[in-house]
Amino acid sequence: MSANEIPDIVIRRLPIYLRTLRRMQGLGLESVSSEDLGAHIGVTAAQIRRDFSYFGRFGKQGKGYDIANLADGIQRVLKLDRTWNVALVGFGQLGRAIAHYRGFESNSFRISAIFARNREHIGQEANGVAVMDASAMQEVIPEMGIRIGIIAVPADNAQEVAEQLVDSGVLAILNYAPAIIHVPEHVRVREIDPTSALQSLTFYLESGDQPPDSVFDTSLLPSMAQTRD
Amino acid sequence: MSANEIPDIVIRRLPIYLRTLRRMQGLGLESVSSEDLGAHIGVTAAQIRRDFSYFGRFGKQGKGYDIANLADGIQRVLKLDRTWNVALVGFGQLGRAIAHYRGFESNSFRISAIFARNREHIGQEANGVAVMDASAMQEVIPEMGIRIGIIAVPADNAQEVAEQLVDSGVLAILNYAPAIIHVPEHVRVREIDPTSALQSLTFYLESGDQPPDSVFDTSLLPSMAQTRD
Repeated sequence: MSANEIPDIVIRRLPIYLRTLRRMQGLGLESVSSEDLGAHIGVTAAQIRRDFSYFGRFGKQGKGYDIANLADGIQRVLKLDRTWNVALVGFGQLGRAIAHYRGFESNSFRISAIFARNREHIGQEANGVAVMDASAMQEVIPEMGIRIGIIAVPADNAQEVAEQLVDSGVLAILNYAPAIIHVPEHVRVREIDPTSALQSLTFYLESGDQPPDSVFDTSLLPSMAQTRD
Repeated sequence: MSANEIPDIVIRRLPIYLRTLRRMQGLGLESVSSEDLGAHIGVTAAQIRRDFSYFGRFGKQGKGYDIANLADGIQRVLKLDRTWNVALVGFGQLGRAIAHYRGFESNSFRISAIFARNREHIGQEANGVAVMDASAMQEVIPEMGIRIGIIAVPADNAQEVAEQLVDSGVLAILNYAPAIIHVPEHVRVREIDPTSALQSLTFYLESGDQPPDSVFDTSLLPSMAQTRD
């Protein structure tokens, strides 16, 4: 199956499917219809069937998908049936939060090298990994066979770090810096960009809009009728 | 201009345009062609012209866009010509990194209320904002007229926090928790989901792939021929 045949937007949805299926598995469920799976995720059943059709082996719709098989299949397609070593660059407040983020380890990723420029950060540790001088990047990353890099440096340094990562053999970059980085075509980048995310939310707000009446069952929550406005 | 007429994907691109234009302005540039703007951002000139056509007043293509006018126009469309108060929920390592993130303030957002459940976190401060008990959310958020919430709590608590935010009048949520939250239709959510981002990158990697020959000018960088595999 060539990567080029499958739209990137479909690939981006697979982790969401995987996470939802693993949660269902954890609840003891064995099969799920595309309707139910879609309802959990917020996409249509037709979309789910179309997405899975790219892979052609995810079981039959009708009596439902076998959850364990489907999750294992998606995990193989995403190459998550192994642990990927990841290099983190930057050990300021954000870098430290990323280094300690628990979501990665349980999901096939291990931050196994950390680099920083700030002398105060070098030699510190996170989860048993010592922070190295950024100048060691191009020696250590190829030695460890690392293909994935996380950029958590200030915007002004992001492009330079991206180039060092790419020159060290990194092929996939998760960029937390608020800067667009330019990389060769063979390198994939995903942006973590909270400011742009917020900026694209305010479009939908009105300065003077009022909160609507509660849409949740507030019987479980403290009353707020008096405090609202 | 109704929000419903414009595809969300176009709205998501506007912050990128804005940031690029402000950077050009900072460099003293006065006008830019859609070709040059596109080249900086990595989209086609045709895409840029089509995106701007939704707003119908962003100046003439041909002799180029007036950078200041275009940036101001996008800023108005996104309603970023004011400061938005934001409520942050969660003050663990991630919450603290968000509270101290400098990108927000200079971009129309101010974290003006912070909530936590952990008693150790309550009473701590970030940028002069004291962390309040989460139970105060539904009193404080309406009082302050806050419409934007950031969720930085563990996955298991994310849905409950989302409901509390929505019931407090929040209409836009930035969700850092690795969980899909369900909200009413009138509420917009953007996800910050680094694990899914990484998981959708490994699809494009091969276990055995080798780094390609350097594509950057390595004359400025330490030699790495010896160390690379």
